[in-house]
Amino acid sequence: MENASNCLAIVGATLLDGTGVVPRPSATILVEGERIVAIGDGSLEIPRGARRIDAPGKYVITGLMDANVHLFYVNTPDHLVRYEGRYEAVIAEAAQIALRSGVTTVFDTWGPRAALTVVRDQINRGERVGSRIFFAGNIIGLGGPTSADFFPIARQVLGTAEADAMDARWEQGVGADLLWCTPEEVRSRVRRYIAEGDQDFLKYAGSGHTHMQFIAFSEPVQRLIVEEAHFAGLTVQAHTTSPESLRMEIEADADLLQHPDITGAAPLPPDLLERMVKQQLPCAAMFVTQRYLDWNLKNGQQPMKSFRQIQARNDRDLVAAGARLLLTTDGGVLPPDTADHPLLSAAVLAEDSPTVLGEGHFRWLEAAAELGLSPMEALKAGTSNVAHAYHVAEDLGTVEVGKLADMLILDEDPLTDSRHYRALHTVIKGGIVIDRETLPTERVVTAALSR
Amino acid sequence: MENASNCLAIVGATLLDGTGVVPRPSATILVEGERIVAIGDGSLEIPRGARRIDAPGKYVITGLMDANVHLFYVNTPDHLVRYEGRYEAVIAEAAQIALRSGVTTVFDTWGPRAALTVVRDQINRGERVGSRIFFAGNIIGLGGPTSADFFPIARQVLGTAEADAMDARWEQGVGADLLWCTPEEVRSRVRRYIAEGDQDFLKYAGSGHTHMQFIAFSEPVQRLIVEEAHFAGLTVQAHTTSPESLRMEIEADADLLQHPDITGAAPLPPDLLERMVKQQLPCAAMFVTQRYLDWNLKNGQQPMKSFRQIQARNDRDLVAAGARLLLTTDGGVLPPDTADHPLLSAAVLAEDSPTVLGEGHFRWLEAAAELGLSPMEALKAGTSNVAHAYHVAEDLGTVEVGKLADMLILDEDPLTDSRHYRALHTVIKGGIVIDRETLPTERVVTAALSR
Amino acid sequence: MENASNCLAIVGATLLDGTGVVPRPSATILVEGERIVAIGDGSLEIPRGARRIDAPGKYVITGLMDANVHLFYVNTPDHLVRYEGRYEAVIAEAAQIALRSGVTTVFDTWGPRAALTVVRDQINRGERVGSRIFFAGNIIGLGGPTSADFFPIARQVLGTAEADAMDARWEQGVGADLLWCTPEEVRSRVRRYIAEGDQDFLKYAGSGHTHMQFIAFSEPVQRLIVEEAHFAGLTVQAHTTSPESLRMEIEADADLLQHPDITGAAPLPPDLLERMVKQQLPCAAMFVTQRYLDWNLKNGQQPMKSFRQIQARNDRDLVAAGARLLLTTDGGVLPPDTADHPLLSAAVLAEDSPTVLGEGHFRWLEAAAELGLSPMEALKAGTSNVAHAYHVAEDLGTVEVGKLADMLILDEDPLTDSRHYRALHTVIKGGIVIDRETLPTERVVTAALSR
Amino acid sequence: MENASNCLAIVGATLLDGTGVVPRPSATILVEGERIVAIGDGSLEIPRGARRIDAPGKYVITGLMDANVHLFYVNTPDHLVRYEGRYEAVIAEAAQIALRSGVTTVFDTWGPRAALTVVRDQINRGERVGSRIFFAGNIIGLGGPTSADFFPIARQVLGTAEADAMDARWEQGVGADLLWCTPEEVRSRVRRYIAEGDQDFLKYAGSGHTHMQFIAFSEPVQRLIVEEAHFAGLTVQAHTTSPESLRMEIEADADLLQHPDITGAAPLPPDLLERMVKQQLPCAAMFVTQRYLDWNLKNGQQPMKSFRQIQARNDRDLVAAGARLLLTTDGGVLPPDTADHPLLSAAVLAEDSPTVLGEGHFRWLEAAAELGLSPMEALKAGTSNVAHAYHVAEDLGTVEVGKLADMLILDEDPLTDSRHYRALHTVIKGGIVIDRETLPTERVVTAALSR
Repeated sequence: MENASNCLAIVGATLLDGTGVVPRPSATILVEGERIVAIGDGSLEIPRGARRIDAPGKYVITGLMDANVHLFYVNTPDHLVRYEGRYEAVIAEAAQIALRSGVTTVFDTWGPRAALTVVRDQINRGERVGSRIFFAGNIIGLGGPTSADFFPIARQVLGTAEADAMDARWEQGVGADLLWCTPEEVRSRVRRYIAEGDQDFLKYAGSGHTHMQFIAFSEPVQRLIVEEAHFAGLTVQAHTTSPESLRMEIEADADLLQHPDITGAAPLPPDLLERMVKQQLPCAAMFVTQRYLDWNLKNGQQPMKSFRQIQARNDRDLVAAGARLLLTTDGGVLPPDTADHPLLSAAVLAEDSPTVLGEGHFRWLEAAAELGLSPMEALKAGTSNVAHAYHVAEDLGTVEVGKLADMLILDEDPLTDSRHYRALHTVIKGGIVIDRETLPTERVVTAALSR
Repeated sequence: MENASNCLAIVGATLLDGTGVVPRPSATILVEGERIVAIGDGSLEIPRGARRIDAPGKYVITGLMDANVHLFYVNTPDHLVRYEGRYEAVIAEAAQIALRSGVTTVFDTWGPRAALTVVRDQINRGERVGSRIFFAGNIIGLGGPTSADFFPIARQVLGTAEADAMDARWEQGVGADLLWCTPEEVRSRVRRYIAEGDQDFLKYAGSGHTHMQFIAFSEPVQRLIVEEAHFAGLTVQAHTTSPESLRMEIEADADLLQHPDITGAAPLPPDLLERMVKQQLPCAAMFVTQRYLDWNLKNGQQPMKSFRQIQARNDRDLVAAGARLLLTTDGGVLPPDTADHPLLSAAVLAEDSPTVLGEGHFRWLEAAAELGLSPMEALKAGTSNVAHAYHVAEDLGTVEVGKLADMLILDEDPLTDSRHYRALHTVIKGGIVIDRETLPTERVVTAALSR
Repeated sequence: MENASNCLAIVGATLLDGTGVVPRPSATILVEGERIVAIGDGSLEIPRGARRIDAPGKYVITGLMDANVHLFYVNTPDHLVRYEGRYEAVIAEAAQIALRSGVTTVFDTWGPRAALTVVRDQINRGERVGSRIFFAGNIIGLGGPTSADFFPIARQVLGTAEADAMDARWEQGVGADLLWCTPEEVRSRVRRYIAEGDQDFLKYAGSGHTHMQFIAFSEPVQRLIVEEAHFAGLTVQAHTTSPESLRMEIEADADLLQHPDITGAAPLPPDLLERMVKQQLPCAAMFVTQRYLDWNLKNGQQPMKSFRQIQARNDRDLVAAGARLLLTTDGGVLPPDTADHPLLSAAVLAEDSPTVLGEGHFRWLEAAAELGLSPMEALKAGTSNVAHAYHVAEDLGTVEVGKLADMLILDEDPLTDSRHYRALHTVIKGGIVIDRETLPTERVVTAALSR
Repeated sequence: MENASNCLAIVGATLLDGTGVVPRPSATILVEGERIVAIGDGSLEIPRGARRIDAPGKYVITGLMDANVHLFYVNTPDHLVRYEGRYEAVIAEAAQIALRSGVTTVFDTWGPRAALTVVRDQINRGERVGSRIFFAGNIIGLGGPTSADFFPIARQVLGTAEADAMDARWEQGVGADLLWCTPEEVRSRVRRYIAEGDQDFLKYAGSGHTHMQFIAFSEPVQRLIVEEAHFAGLTVQAHTTSPESLRMEIEADADLLQHPDITGAAPLPPDLLERMVKQQLPCAAMFVTQRYLDWNLKNGQQPMKSFRQIQARNDRDLVAAGARLLLTTDGGVLPPDTADHPLLSAAVLAEDSPTVLGEGHFRWLEAAAELGLSPMEALKAGTSNVAHAYHVAEDLGTVEVGKLADMLILDEDPLTDSRHYRALHTVIKGGIVIDRETLPTERVVTAALSR
């Protein structure tokens, strides 16, 4: 360890390593390059030349991980047009906003594959700053942004070929027309989708997005999608929105359930809850604070208003039963014209809206506390649980020797108050101390609009 | 056989008995009361006092049976309001229009249960004239006429409680909210539906009505619906609109497939076709004439236009493969303001539209010939196949001793030209010669509108 | 005066005769047949055989007159269908509801001419009970109920010929297509409209109904409509909704301004206010209570919400300036499914909604008091002002000898509290004491809906 | 004339000078700087150093002038977003497309004032190439692109403040809310509009744009708008869409009638036609070819389909009666996604659509011939008539000494066949020979879309 210029030492903080063991006070964490190479107490030798961060009285946790974001979130027809040709910049900006707020890893579960690939790789190669990105591309079985599954009004204001081209960036051959296909055709289309792209994991629609109560794929078809994913070495998650679709996805052996707390007009059936807990199936539940629920009760529109209240009940049940929970926000970056936007205003005007990237994860952690999740379990939900669910725990999810050095230094103890996650002092990703003030380096979606 | 005033003899016609055997020339058919008591040749003794119909040169077939009609077809919001309070009269008029045109038995597969019960029973007791009615009530899993499954615009022009009350006449506890339910809840709701009503058979939505590509119920739920039906001694059919929903329904052991030729954007998968043929599953396929297809190609709107062309291909495949086919029209009686009605005009303006009750069955039979179905198989599709599929073959479907005396006397041989079914000379139902000129006895839907 | 069986004497009440003179205590009012024949004090001789109503401590006023109602108010597409074929019964019911609540004369300013003619004449001949009806038929230049001027959504749910036939009952050749016509054509169409019908007065659209800010007719065209009306001996009023349309109507010499307080987004211009006051032009202003305004501020939708607040300001100005005011409600009878009706609920749910026939006039009188109108002027606004404006003061509008005996006996003094108009003791119309309990004699619109 | 490097001589062509005199064969036209300094025959001396264009067998006319274009034509919500921030480039591109096709002067009658000012001035200063631009800015009394007057669906897909900001670029204080104003307020708003901007002329809405049959301003208000324009030395034109609005505009002394052939559902009244002819009021009539009319009859939608046929009849009447006609196209530049655009496709798919900038003027001239306009009158309609109507005849509209040297050299005689206007050989503007191949210099709206 002669030349230690690529070394970093964090000295004196209390370490919450994310494994669930009791906090370790006055720890010294030694990073070399992008990985953690040693963890010890004050006696651990720090190489000469190493950068040293003295952090007594502070707390070190692993970088937060969000199991569900949409880095390209500007999907209404006007925004699609506005950001046309700038997909990569939009995605990079979002990855920086996430990183700035302590989310060192994001899992993008629905987005334009080509642009996501470029930005992910640029970040991985160090050419851009930003959260680590893992992405799925399309939700298998759903259409793109202008389709009936998302903003069909787009088809009233956009040229058809233009809208088709936009949708194609998401769909990539596994869009909504898959629902007409035979199992063999689905298999072949999914296989091609896997072969042609470099996505990190798969996501499929167990049920509809707009038409939440409908089932998208029969159980055999769900199984074969899971098979194809596993054959390719990918985890596969299910988009789920109704009790019976949830059952089907569990039976189909999906690796991760994306918002199993969304069950529409009926609560989570007890037998399914029991199975999820027993199998410790990763549940990416969209926790919201009571403040949000109150806003929803007052301002929400039916039927989503009722659905949200039922979801809140499911969330309480999931916590109480001991489900394996993952922090998930569905978050994205919204442009300045969102608050008075006819298609978006409700979401963004909500108090404690969970879907605001850079804020949503804090709200999730606060909501978790309100729901009775223990502080340690909440920390794991935002770190190691996500890493395990996505099969990236070898590198991520805890502060342990050999892992990638993604760490947050907090001014306050997050175990005593969930709001302390906001007391971000330093963000370290891959051994590099992030200059948060400079992020995002280029404003695209958050840029002021000319008037 | 002293007192033969309740006897009827048809003498001298060629009998096509519907069993598939070769026609029997110069037959004598003897009816006593509502049943056929003897069939012979010229030597058969005719009781004194019997009414005698001399029919040399004519043809006798069993009364036609339509596997899918909607006697209450006036479901747009304006029509629901117009015919409010007159459901029974509307249904009776339709049953008479069917009877008048040679359809002695209809299977109503979606309608208001209470009114259907009343009219069916009145007809069965001889208090009203009309086709024999067998009905399902609601399609389990679909909403009523003003719901998202049919004419959601109704909710923009009708009071909410009023629309709810209308829908409730169809839904009867097994409406669209069933899609949110757990299997146990579905079972309990279906069981109650069976217990509370006097429907003749069940029908459930394998897939959506408006959202055709979506699956309505998981396979286990479909199975339990079938189980409940069978436990109650009822046949159960599936409403099917996509290849994968068809597969699920076959696996769920549905007794009858309602329009398995409707597979949306993709053709009927060969393996499913093979299974249906092998198991001789009753296929109520909605045949249309080439004239209709031409009209559709010229005037239809996407995506239904393409779907129709694919359906036509499926129809050809079903005939060629030897599927067990049933005559099915989806027919109803339309009011005078249909042709220029914004929600209906397309259907009724179509040339050879299959859904016009009183005409549709003739068009189906003509289409069958165009599709290459043999004349004898076509006759069976409109008679004995339907009777067997609905488990009423003990009484209906053929001209045989012991059966109910539902017969048509035709002026021309229907086996030489499918258009000869239109050459109706006499309609006999339950041994009674129908005075066709007097039907419908009361004009409701077909009455002229005041101006 | 031998045979006095057709005589009626009201004895001992305080008479507020509507002329504006001071109340006359202990009056005796003598009616013979349908007219008032004498008014005196206790010394007035009452013919033997006369029916005598002792009313000491009570108050007699002339029957109230509403300058703007719509007896056929059920104009949404569903209601048009529901009440099809029952127009006369609907109108008669409304006329009875008005009469029951003390409105002995109504001016119907937009309705189906043929049915209004029949009911008006039946009432006048004594064949039906009901308020005296004077009517305009169509608003010249506006379309019928299903047109763009009222409920265009009707055209999405009704057959075209059916909707056309409905509209024609209103339009009668002077509908919205008049806006395309040359002055000569307008003149010819209006002349024919006058010649072919038996309407009591005319009303034309100075500006739009839905598109309130637009002008419907140029000034020369407005003038010629006024000319044609006057030539035929009819009063003519203008539907007015914007400041500039109001100016044009004043210049065109319209006899009566229907809701000149409605000026949309801008207040009533001072110069127009001054002119209306100076010329004492009859202003049928739609006063509302503060309670209604508060409701509107809380629940109203833009832009009507703002328009209403501006209208309220105009109303205060009209009162303060001394305009000649007429009680006007725009009232109608609403069916039971109004409260949850998507096209109607806002109106009927409003607190103190002015447009509820049978209630609206009471609210108008209460609003007048809130706005500072003197009790005597308010009484005149609801009686003699209306009679003069419509040129029927020879027979109606005051309790004077020679006038038709339309009178209300109140338990409390309406000059001390505007709510006392509700203290209706007896309604007399044309000398006949109305049996209010029996009204409406036939329930049509107010009948319960079958469920 | 020592230094003649800024001189240009066109030698040998037949000159059609636009004054209406007989063509002058073998003319020599001498230009110095931007003006024509001499016109003679072969004997005219050409300064040494002058650039010489030998044009025997060719034809010289003055540059064409279009009385009605929209250089910023991309007003659907998606296009507004796409070209946000690039208004000037969009306008410049359109001015170049016009120039390239022989239209040396355009009158923009509805557009974003600030950007038009910049581009007009740049062109006038020689900093940009393009047609001479004269513009009005807003149509007084109409809203911007996202308002109810144009594409109200925009308000369903754009943020409110964003849409407001877009509209404001057009409205500039004289938008649709003007219809609520008193005459004094209108005067004050128009005066401010004139004072704050540098528009070349004014245009006001005599009637509605979407609601064509409605009148926007009373006659006194129209008069005062005209007064204000004239006081400021500006010509003022009226947007007219109905017979009665046309009458009002004539009475209000508008200088120019923009599309007086558009009279909606009724034809042009003979008395108005007579007045326009007698006063020789400039009529910017939107002539279309028979080919376009045939397309419209086959593919048009009501009511515009009928309106177009009536308009064609008006056009024939205008020509026959000898009205003073101006070439007017309402033309603009459309982006590549127009043909399959739900809000635009009809216009652009029409055969011989008049509104395609760069093509529309040729079609207008061809239509003029079809309508029977003499070749010489057609030429004047596209040149000197426009110049006179807009009060720019001192500089433009004919090829005469002292005028600006805007000229086209044609390979064929436009008087023998109206299609010969397409035989453009050379475009000269202000004495400069335009390099047509290089236009547009920057592709914005016409650039290919990325896919």
